[in-house]
Amino acid sequence: MKIGMAGLGVMGHSVAENLIRHGFDMVLYDIRPEAMTDLVEAGAEAVDSLEALGSAADTVLLMVNTYDQYKSVLAGILKTMHAGTLINLGTLGRDHVLELEKQAEEAGVSMLDCPVSGGSRGAKAGTLTVMASGPDELFEKHKKILDAFGSRVIHVGKNVGDGQAVKAINQLLVGVHMCATAEAFTVARKCGLDLQTVYDTICSSAGMSRIFENRGEFLIARDFSTRSTLEIQLKDTDIACKTADAVGAPALLGTTARELFKLAVKKYPPRDDSLEVVRLYEELAGLD
Amino acid sequence: MKIGMAGLGVMGHSVAENLIRHGFDMVLYDIRPEAMTDLVEAGAEAVDSLEALGSAADTVLLMVNTYDQYKSVLAGILKTMHAGTLINLGTLGRDHVLELEKQAEEAGVSMLDCPVSGGSRGAKAGTLTVMASGPDELFEKHKKILDAFGSRVIHVGKNVGDGQAVKAINQLLVGVHMCATAEAFTVARKCGLDLQTVYDTICSSAGMSRIFENRGEFLIARDFSTRSTLEIQLKDTDIACKTADAVGAPALLGTTARELFKLAVKKYPPRDDSLEVVRLYEELAGLD
Repeated sequence: MKIGMAGLGVMGHSVAENLIRHGFDMVLYDIRPEAMTDLVEAGAEAVDSLEALGSAADTVLLMVNTYDQYKSVLAGILKTMHAGTLINLGTLGRDHVLELEKQAEEAGVSMLDCPVSGGSRGAKAGTLTVMASGPDELFEKHKKILDAFGSRVIHVGKNVGDGQAVKAINQLLVGVHMCATAEAFTVARKCGLDLQTVYDTICSSAGMSRIFENRGEFLIARDFSTRSTLEIQLKDTDIACKTADAVGAPALLGTTARELFKLAVKKYPPRDDSLEVVRLYEELAGLD
Repeated sequence: MKIGMAGLGVMGHSVAENLIRHGFDMVLYDIRPEAMTDLVEAGAEAVDSLEALGSAADTVLLMVNTYDQYKSVLAGILKTMHAGTLINLGTLGRDHVLELEKQAEEAGVSMLDCPVSGGSRGAKAGTLTVMASGPDELFEKHKKILDAFGSRVIHVGKNVGDGQAVKAINQLLVGVHMCATAEAFTVARKCGLDLQTVYDTICSSAGMSRIFENRGEFLIARDFSTRSTLEIQLKDTDIACKTADAVGAPALLGTTARELFKLAVKKYPPRDDSLEVVRLYEELAGLD
């Protein structure tokens, strides 16, 4: 079985690396040929068009950013792919992934929806959480592929789109917790407290979140090296709010977080680390 | 050394139990004599006035609810207590505890500010987190008392009020995370997802918070037995927002959570479990 992959950005590149390491026969396509050089050295085949990818692979993994990118990638691949399975790894929202599934089905191609959590570090280490959804037999058939880059591969639902919904809920919480962490640290600074003590106390108290625990350390060190960008955080929080809206659920905190990321993307470089949302709080509080 | 305690509600009663179990010589006062019956059987002495408590004890622990209660308790105790230390265990806000410290100092009594986290279960088990603040020597002198009911006794600052500030930051996060958990579960229900799967996935993903992990299980089981009340959650979130406001820090998410608890306290019985804030979300989403 030949595994194709389209979209070799930071996350996709690491996923492909893990698949090659696990012995999968890989064929790759990316709009930037240089993104594939080292993967070809590691044993993968590179092709120069989506059509070539579609005709070479039995299963194709997709990991691009925007819905527009997904649409054009699918249009290319489905010109030559008329059987097999597409596995989406990206976060693009329930409605959008259902739209892609429809197009795939019309071409005779099945689909698994498998958004991931764990960021670039999880992708590199092969320890992503994979929120897989789709029919049982399709999931079972492809589980080994997912196991190559995920340490927690969870079959979250039988319908394509369930994976997106669970991911959206996770991102709703991530966005809210990121802003709450910024809010908490700004209060702590203005109260003149020792930040390390506040951090240690909260990490062992009811107020702890995984984002607070993880990003709090960077806030103390004023380390804003990019782990996830403001623009991707905005995209994901926006998808979360739209998911809530589409099913008629209120997103009072989610939308507040989204507006904060929207502001931050306008004021600061969009590819800066998402933690820079704290700068909005600091400006409002009159801190440097 | 004789240890006094005023305020034997659910939390205070468990703290006193742990102190008696650790061999401390205790003298107690509560406005409800029946709250002390079993503690007297366990070896404590009960007195029938705050004045009697103030003259009998070298150190007095305070654990009442409102600032008004604190003021009247202090007025009674300080009639007869002119040396020793008051240890506050309650959450009442930085400004208020500084006001109490001033009154204590005028009477020749020193003060430690030691709000706790961990709820009624932590109090019963003697595993509270104690956010102690005050001068080094005063903290060291009384640490053994705090160790009797706290498993994490942290000296968070040298100033009375620092403990309140750290607790307020913790409560800001708790309030926001409680509403975020309600928001997330409501989206999950409206999306028709399996709640246990969503819970398990998020608990192993970046969206996890200690409140989500702890309260999510009760939401799945629809278990609304009282662990912390809506009115206490409102009080604590309000203190958190006022703390932020007093130092000029924005509390965008905190105030949203406060308004939600304020609404919930108006609509539902105020002594219901704080998790019932989810009912606001469910009503807005048209769920039962």
